[in-house]
Amino acid sequence: MWIKKCWILVAILLLSLPIYGTGLRSLDDFPFSLGVKDSLMIAHSFHGHPSFGPAGGLHGATYTCDVDFLSKQLHPELNWVIDIGKALDILSKVLSRYNLKNLDEVFPDNTMTTTEFMCKQIHDDICRLLEDECKEFKGAVRVKLWESHKAWATYTGITSSDETRSEL
Amino acid sequence: MWIKKCWILVAILLLSLPIYGTGLRSLDDFPFSLGVKDSLMIAHSFHGHPSFGPAGGLHGATYTCDVDFLSKQLHPELNWVIDIGKALDILSKVLSRYNLKNLDEVFPDNTMTTTEFMCKQIHDDICRLLEDECKEFKGAVRVKLWESHKAWATYTGITSSDETRSEL
Amino acid sequence: MWIKKCWILVAILLLSLPIYGTGLRSLDDFPFSLGVKDSLMIAHSFHGHPSFGPAGGLHGATYTCDVDFLSKQLHPELNWVIDIGKALDILSKVLSRYNLKNLDEVFPDNTMTTTEFMCKQIHDDICRLLEDECKEFKGAVRVKLWESHKAWATYTGITSSDETRSEL
Amino acid sequence: MWIKKCWILVAILLLSLPIYGTGLRSLDDFPFSLGVKDSLMIAHSFHGHPSFGPAGGLHGATYTCDVDFLSKQLHPELNWVIDIGKALDILSKVLSRYNLKNLDEVFPDNTMTTTEFMCKQIHDDICRLLEDECKEFKGAVRVKLWESHKAWATYTGITSSDETRSEL
Amino acid sequence: MWIKKCWILVAILLLSLPIYGTGLRSLDDFPFSLGVKDSLMIAHSFHGHPSFGPAGGLHGATYTCDVDFLSKQLHPELNWVIDIGKALDILSKVLSRYNLKNLDEVFPDNTMTTTEFMCKQIHDDICRLLEDECKEFKGAVRVKLWESHKAWATYTGITSSDETRSEL
Amino acid sequence: MWIKKCWILVAILLLSLPIYGTGLRSLDDFPFSLGVKDSLMIAHSFHGHPSFGPAGGLHGATYTCDVDFLSKQLHPELNWVIDIGKALDILSKVLSRYNLKNLDEVFPDNTMTTTEFMCKQIHDDICRLLEDECKEFKGAVRVKLWESHKAWATYTGITSSDETRSEL
Repeated sequence: MWIKKCWILVAILLLSLPIYGTGLRSLDDFPFSLGVKDSLMIAHSFHGHPSFGPAGGLHGATYTCDVDFLSKQLHPELNWVIDIGKALDILSKVLSRYNLKNLDEVFPDNTMTTTEFMCKQIHDDICRLLEDECKEFKGAVRVKLWESHKAWATYTGITSSDETRSEL
Repeated sequence: MWIKKCWILVAILLLSLPIYGTGLRSLDDFPFSLGVKDSLMIAHSFHGHPSFGPAGGLHGATYTCDVDFLSKQLHPELNWVIDIGKALDILSKVLSRYNLKNLDEVFPDNTMTTTEFMCKQIHDDICRLLEDECKEFKGAVRVKLWESHKAWATYTGITSSDETRSEL
Repeated sequence: MWIKKCWILVAILLLSLPIYGTGLRSLDDFPFSLGVKDSLMIAHSFHGHPSFGPAGGLHGATYTCDVDFLSKQLHPELNWVIDIGKALDILSKVLSRYNLKNLDEVFPDNTMTTTEFMCKQIHDDICRLLEDECKEFKGAVRVKLWESHKAWATYTGITSSDETRSEL
Repeated sequence: MWIKKCWILVAILLLSLPIYGTGLRSLDDFPFSLGVKDSLMIAHSFHGHPSFGPAGGLHGATYTCDVDFLSKQLHPELNWVIDIGKALDILSKVLSRYNLKNLDEVFPDNTMTTTEFMCKQIHDDICRLLEDECKEFKGAVRVKLWESHKAWATYTGITSSDETRSEL
Repeated sequence: MWIKKCWILVAILLLSLPIYGTGLRSLDDFPFSLGVKDSLMIAHSFHGHPSFGPAGGLHGATYTCDVDFLSKQLHPELNWVIDIGKALDILSKVLSRYNLKNLDEVFPDNTMTTTEFMCKQIHDDICRLLEDECKEFKGAVRVKLWESHKAWATYTGITSSDETRSEL
Repeated sequence: MWIKKCWILVAILLLSLPIYGTGLRSLDDFPFSLGVKDSLMIAHSFHGHPSFGPAGGLHGATYTCDVDFLSKQLHPELNWVIDIGKALDILSKVLSRYNLKNLDEVFPDNTMTTTEFMCKQIHDDICRLLEDECKEFKGAVRVKLWESHKAWATYTGITSSDETRSEL
């Protein structure tokens, strides 16, 4: 009888694990952040799509780019989320792919290069570069692009979640 | 015996559902946002309540209003969270209810129209207008009101959560 | 037989409680915030540690400090998250511990007083002062320190979580 | 003899007049200002000119545009420099000539549409519109264009100086 | 003959003096400045005057107030334009006359309390307080009031010009 | 007789020349500007001088540095005030002399390294570098240092005024 009950409790625990697990993926688990700012200047159009009105034609934007690196804890000795020099370097490398370019040429197939889309693009580029050049950083990355003094967009994602989970 | 165990596992799963379900309501589920800014100028008092000190009497404020529209994903074709023109239009409509008014007259019964209270008010107004004029937007809305260069308040809420859940 | 099943269901519920409980600790449970800004000017070094390059030597910083007080609901009568005068007073008291000081002397043992570290320090100081002077505030506190026009750090934590849980 | 001396004194005074006159044209004579902000998004290139490096090719910019209207005195009854609604309207009209356009097409002959150049252009457009739609404004206009979070340009000029002089 | 010529030259010089003198009153003569920021919250109306449209009725504003103290040279020992503590104290005293007040009551006779008007008012108040409490400051004062994220006004004036001239 | 009168008129004109000349040195003669931003982090004290109160001891600051380059006209072909890349490079070189340093060591003899003093210092350094590396720039330079979110200082001066005069 007790063995049976144990079996049931083990089943409950196993079923509960993914729930606890999702907890690990919440942004709440990354209470620390470091942020850096840079900017880029691009041309693009919305390919004449009527939903964008006069913005359908060729125009451009300065995107001021704020990137937050979120982490669970600080480096035990250096008390940092990430080396700020490395963070600025990674941001600069990523932005140089788009800076002073025409996004209509960078992204083929009439992609709508909205500020929201560019946030995700820059986010994903940063995450890939972090994996290559800054493996020790585990956490989340938030990208905010200001397109003017009164409009902006953001994208927030957790880096390499599988490794993150086991690491944490 | 196996039937009994199945019954128990079903019970566990049923009990777990709301937990998985709450996951859907987390702000973490809305990684994209678009934000727009506008402002309004109001008079109000705190009805002489002693807790507010000299702010109890009639005075006023410029609220600079930042609204973030958060969503799970981008529009599949247009790559936007929400049409920015629609977002600005909704914000402008909502702020016109309070702009250049005396909030002591807009809100009866000695309501304390703190910046926090106005955040929730503007949030709820925006959500109602979204339901009327922009049904395709599902997600969350964050309202930030700057009352001065050194003080602000925010309110964040998920729009029409029931629909959101089934939609997602 | 039914007694046994009941026992199992009770076990499931007991095991589920912490999961529901963690829900209470999410930042999503604090939709309201009030924020205030102040600044402090400090000297410090990174004790010549090579990882910090030229910042290893004695230099300094102005930290512009944004503090958000997050709460589940507004005060039922006053419609505030926290008395803004109290919030500014607590912030001022905490910053006076570090303002116009050399952090190399304030923190012994070659502590690396990064912006990230100072965020947590100021956060913890604010939480302790809240417990002493503003017991009625339950919620979370986010500290953001701007170290320049292009770099900042944050720390976010939930105050007195045990009490919070039972209170909520 | 005295007649001769008088003649000389008159000559001195006549010669001095333009000097006193130039005093009228100093920005110091316009102690009041009203300012408004708007923004525009443009594409342009520097026509592959090597002096501009990678900015020679097609790219774009958001210009946040601050315009100051400077005047000698306030309207005697209304206590304003200029009707702020009129100021915003004039700015909006002027910016619409360039907003969401490719400046390489707006300005022929390989004009270098630097931020400095656009400041002067917008300044001159505003002055012309003031003469048409707001004749009562006499004074100076300063245009500041932010091209990014870390770069800007300005142009300041006095409107319709001849009339200004006689008016003052 | 030479005596007559001398007499004429003296006349020329005397006539030229005021021209050299006006040079002393130019803002260009004050190359140094120190600036401080504070804010105030007021209610006011434009007394239903039709020129102000919907702003004619009772509403309010937060004015963020930037004050620049301009001087010809730095204090010879302390290398400052003005004691920053004194500057902040004077600004705070002046703003307290209007902060959390209804300007319709502070200024009688249906005065139009535009942002421009308030700039001059605060400027004059600061100059009077400087004469009382900080006699050693000679120079100019510029007051900038931000009424929203997209509108502001300024007033610039030279303090106690007679003394300034003889002093310089 | 007419020869005598001519002589007098020539004398008047000669005496008037410096007055016309001073006109050339007014900031009003530089209607164009280009501005760039950077920042530096320094430690310093005010050598325990009682006038500075608690700031007398060792502390530090982040100075956000805005530099405006003012000119009479744009480059005839390139339409710029100054090559923005050169401007940023000069600013960066100048700031590196102070960045991450203890100003008490950089400036001997108990110099009071106020924000005002540092503005003039950076201004003078920029002017010297302009003469070495960017001889074609003639005009004025304004340096603004933000020491916190609510305090700043500026210094404005005209570069190499003698050359400027003859050039203009």
